Amino acid sequence: MSSTTARVRMSPEERRSQLLEIGVGLLATRSLDELSIELLADQAGISRGLLYHYFGNKSDFHVAVVRKAVEDIYAITAPRGLGDPVEQLKASLGAYVDYVTANHAGYVSLVRAARGGNEQLREIYEDSRRALTDRVFEKAAGLEEFAAIDTPATRLLARGWAALVEDAVLAWLDDDAGLSREELLAKLAAALIALII
Amino acid sequence: MSSTTARVRMSPEERRSQLLEIGVGLLATRSLDELSIELLADQAGISRGLLYHYFGNKSDFHVAVVRKAVEDIYAITAPRGLGDPVEQLKASLGAYVDYVTANHAGYVSLVRAARGGNEQLREIYEDSRRALTDRVFEKAAGLEEFAAIDTPATRLLARGWAALVEDAVLAWLDDDAGLSREELLAKLAAALIALII
Repeated sequence: MSSTTARVRMSPEERRSQLLEIGVGLLATRSLDELSIELLADQAGISRGLLYHYFGNKSDFHVAVVRKAVEDIYAITAPRGLGDPVEQLKASLGAYVDYVTANHAGYVSLVRAARGGNEQLREIYEDSRRALTDRVFEKAAGLEEFAAIDTPATRLLARGWAALVEDAVLAWLDDDAGLSREELLAKLAAALIALII
Repeated sequence: MSSTTARVRMSPEERRSQLLEIGVGLLATRSLDELSIELLADQAGISRGLLYHYFGNKSDFHVAVVRKAVEDIYAITAPRGLGDPVEQLKASLGAYVDYVTANHAGYVSLVRAARGGNEQLREIYEDSRRALTDRVFEKAAGLEEFAAIDTPATRLLARGWAALVEDAVLAWLDDDAGLSREELLAKLAAALIALII
């Protein structure tokens, strides 16, 4: 292992992180089931043995890739300090739509795995969805207007809204039904306002 | 078989339908996994052999019970000719909430089964959800205001809204978060208006 990491001058941490990025990239056009350690080894040009060292087994590898994918989604949908809360919300939603567009196969397969029997993926997925919707209410996110109405009831409704967003965005990617990206974002934002204000 | 049906003076059709009702009733407090032909035989006071005659095997039995359950939901949420479309929508939503309240265990387990690996249940469930949301746009349902805006785009958004309704109602049953039934219905109705109008 040390010879490999030395060759590319990366710490084990950096190396693992780079491998995860390749894994998430592979997930853009593949389902989770199609994502194997063998495939990653081919793509990364390193041995399977080393990958097993980093990721344990296929299931642990999938968990690590999915965790990285939801971290990516959380990062790219971060509020950007836009003044208007509705514009801010639409910008975050737009980043989410673009991510799901660019990583369609993997995202669909992640949602299916999480809804199906895989408890570990379900937990990661639900934590991620909760973090994404709870952020709506964070004053630190610059959405003071929404933070002011942070109650258990509005959180419940915002989490239901996340289910709408996911369902509508995946349906829209299959067939946009004549709805532009901008119209979709505006409708989804309007639904949240109707729910929590 | 004929002796049994003769004893209770029911046609095989009526008998099957009565058995399904008992099956759906059992599902109120049980998951689908816990619903066996043996349990139904006990409750209905007839032999397992006769039940296998009606329902084939456990999987066919589950499909029949779930089909009956979604038919029930469709029937009880039927528009009742109330004048105002929003009041009508809230009445239908209220009937749905009451059904899920009264049949909590079975409904949660049906949703899980449909989201998980069971293709046949997933199809029944998705057909049912589509039928329920498409009804929003039926002129015959007395919702002329919504029928007027029936487009592929509003149907896509209404189906996403159904995901919100399901998620929010199940979360609300677990913990109402201080939200009254009336407030929940009003918020869900407002979200649909925001999405499709």
